Amino acid sequence: MISVEEARRRILQALSPTPAETVPLASGWGRVLARPVVSRVTQPPADVSAMDGYAVRAADATEGTRLALVGTAPAGHPFAGTVGPGQAVRIFTGALLPEGADSILLQEDAEASADAVVVGETVRQGRWVRRRGLDFAEGETLLSAGRRLTARDIGLAAAANHPWVAVHRAPRVGILATGDEIALPGEPIPPGGIVSSNAHALAALVRAAGGDPLVLPIAPDDSRAIAEAATAARACDLLVTTGGASVGDHDLVQSALGPEGFALDFWQIAMRPGKPLIWGRLGATPVLGLPGNPVSALVCGVVFLVPALQRLAGLPGEAPRTVMARAGTPLAENDRRFDHLRASLETGPDGALIAMPFPVQDSSMLKTLARAEALILRAPHAPALPAGAAVEVIPLGALGI
Amino acid sequence: MISVEEARRRILQALSPTPAETVPLASGWGRVLARPVVSRVTQPPADVSAMDGYAVRAADATEGTRLALVGTAPAGHPFAGTVGPGQAVRIFTGALLPEGADSILLQEDAEASADAVVVGETVRQGRWVRRRGLDFAEGETLLSAGRRLTARDIGLAAAANHPWVAVHRAPRVGILATGDEIALPGEPIPPGGIVSSNAHALAALVRAAGGDPLVLPIAPDDSRAIAEAATAARACDLLVTTGGASVGDHDLVQSALGPEGFALDFWQIAMRPGKPLIWGRLGATPVLGLPGNPVSALVCGVVFLVPALQRLAGLPGEAPRTVMARAGTPLAENDRRFDHLRASLETGPDGALIAMPFPVQDSSMLKTLARAEALILRAPHAPALPAGAAVEVIPLGALGI
Repeated sequence: MISVEEARRRILQALSPTPAETVPLASGWGRVLARPVVSRVTQPPADVSAMDGYAVRAADATEGTRLALVGTAPAGHPFAGTVGPGQAVRIFTGALLPEGADSILLQEDAEASADAVVVGETVRQGRWVRRRGLDFAEGETLLSAGRRLTARDIGLAAAANHPWVAVHRAPRVGILATGDEIALPGEPIPPGGIVSSNAHALAALVRAAGGDPLVLPIAPDDSRAIAEAATAARACDLLVTTGGASVGDHDLVQSALGPEGFALDFWQIAMRPGKPLIWGRLGATPVLGLPGNPVSALVCGVVFLVPALQRLAGLPGEAPRTVMARAGTPLAENDRRFDHLRASLETGPDGALIAMPFPVQDSSMLKTLARAEALILRAPHAPALPAGAAVEVIPLGALGI
Repeated sequence: MISVEEARRRILQALSPTPAETVPLASGWGRVLARPVVSRVTQPPADVSAMDGYAVRAADATEGTRLALVGTAPAGHPFAGTVGPGQAVRIFTGALLPEGADSILLQEDAEASADAVVVGETVRQGRWVRRRGLDFAEGETLLSAGRRLTARDIGLAAAANHPWVAVHRAPRVGILATGDEIALPGEPIPPGGIVSSNAHALAALVRAAGGDPLVLPIAPDDSRAIAEAATAARACDLLVTTGGASVGDHDLVQSALGPEGFALDFWQIAMRPGKPLIWGRLGATPVLGLPGNPVSALVCGVVFLVPALQRLAGLPGEAPRTVMARAGTPLAENDRRFDHLRASLETGPDGALIAMPFPVQDSSMLKTLARAEALILRAPHAPALPAGAAVEVIPLGALGI
């Protein structure tokens, strides 16, 4: 059995980012840049007004002075002439500062008539002018390769005049649930069987992490069926299987994939839930074999699959983000397996987070996993802790998982 | 001018959740349930084995006893007979506990031959048996209406045998950028003009918040064009405009929409950036008029549009989540407008968050907004604060915005 950290390190090391594709900027949200966004324009392109008001020469614009109105400059319609001494031009936010003017008289500080404006408050030189290039300059790298695009980044790339962006392709993840006992929701349930939940939960997790899931038909516990289904997934960037990863006679994934050229890296991890986890490669396709228990599969999804997706998508791939909380109950001493206790999160009277572990932690209990707001991390051989002790937790809410 | 809180309250009050639609479970991720998910099955459906091992009668299974192997029970293939005294059945995780057996002998605690198994450790009655209904029972409400579906919820709904879920329709949001001075990325830029960034940044924000954006062609500063474009958006759950919301002569959105039946609720908010904000209704369609400055538009997007989208999607709609941090620099006394300072976030040596405001806070600077990791909230008339003082911040990273 290897440690959680070592397993994640080996998984990340074996993966490379998907190749780049060009997408319309409008489709770039959440994708990771494969090439930097370098500005094609200077913003603002010239000195512009930051407010609605009057373009003036500050030397003239002292309180009480009357200036002759010689024109208007709405945004997008620059004033073609020059503002001479004693003159002003009506101007609007974002409009180019006309030749001759150096400052803006705010409209609320002015009294205007048809052909003149009286200065209500002396104007300071350069006031309310946004200088050319205040935001960014042509040729400047605005967004680096490897950055996951936010809505703000999309705005910035647009302002820099990029209709397209080069991003890593969304990782295609094949998902193969195995087992004679499982049926898809709404289909006939075999005797002694249950409804399959892993494939669609993992597909949603893949989508939440920015991947493109491909759910394969369920494979019965039969070497040939598993091998066939896995072959169908060779076009994927990653194949995820569930079930068949533990030590029983009916754990076929390893043996079924062997003749297809499966090369195992490791298959047991010192963690709970989720000890039986397969990592290897089927030809060129990396394979992550998750346990069949739904809680184990999803916890392994958070701990290993999300970082793997980040890496494939062009990010470094990191351990799930953790925060500190206080244990809501005493915690028992841990054994040698890294434990992930399902817990609710509350805010205590002093504002501190309190993580309250559920009393039953069975790895088949999907209902408690769905209600969990956090996983309390218990390192191998962690000592017993009293209630109120500091613990590290993975908050699940923000992940959409 | 009304307060930020009052504006958000009035916006949320005026909106209703979209009607329900039925979607395949696989498409339900991130959607908000319009009807509860009630389990159609009991899980597990009968007592099952929690481990790989041997189904035994605990009364027989004392250390050193030899039990006759009378059959095998893989998951999905229940053993048809009964486990009698002195007998055992090979069993695998998830398989039904055979008649007569009451406990599981772990395979690592057993020494098996072809037709018998020797008990290596005395078995406690009921050990490693998952009782029928341990996870949930038929008829139990597992997920309530109004819940946004996580990947774990998708798994739970699948396990409860639901191939479909009833969710609120993704809110359709029309986005109308106005202005003679703006051009879409890659298109010819008019003299004195700039590249439009608001529409696509807001579309990405809508997508990040679970909505369905409809980007309308840019409307020039001309009443008829704006009115026409707005009419095209009547099929939307919300129309968002940008630009044309302030007090200048060229701020046409209000006047253009008036003849189309626009009913104004309010149009100025005591906040920075983003004072000129229009809220009203065009026939049946709510209209949110955002300022044209890209930073103002996106900050108003975080503060008002995201809660509005939550409300339309079937959630209550809430102020953005905040956390406490320490000011990285002294902060000046605030005026009467609620301020949102763009800031980076660092972790101090003691683990506390430090929010470092950018030195220039101009509302045209999209680059600094894109680099901001948080908005520092400064309430109206907030007193000056020294560096290190506690401040409330909106972290932007987790929002995808």
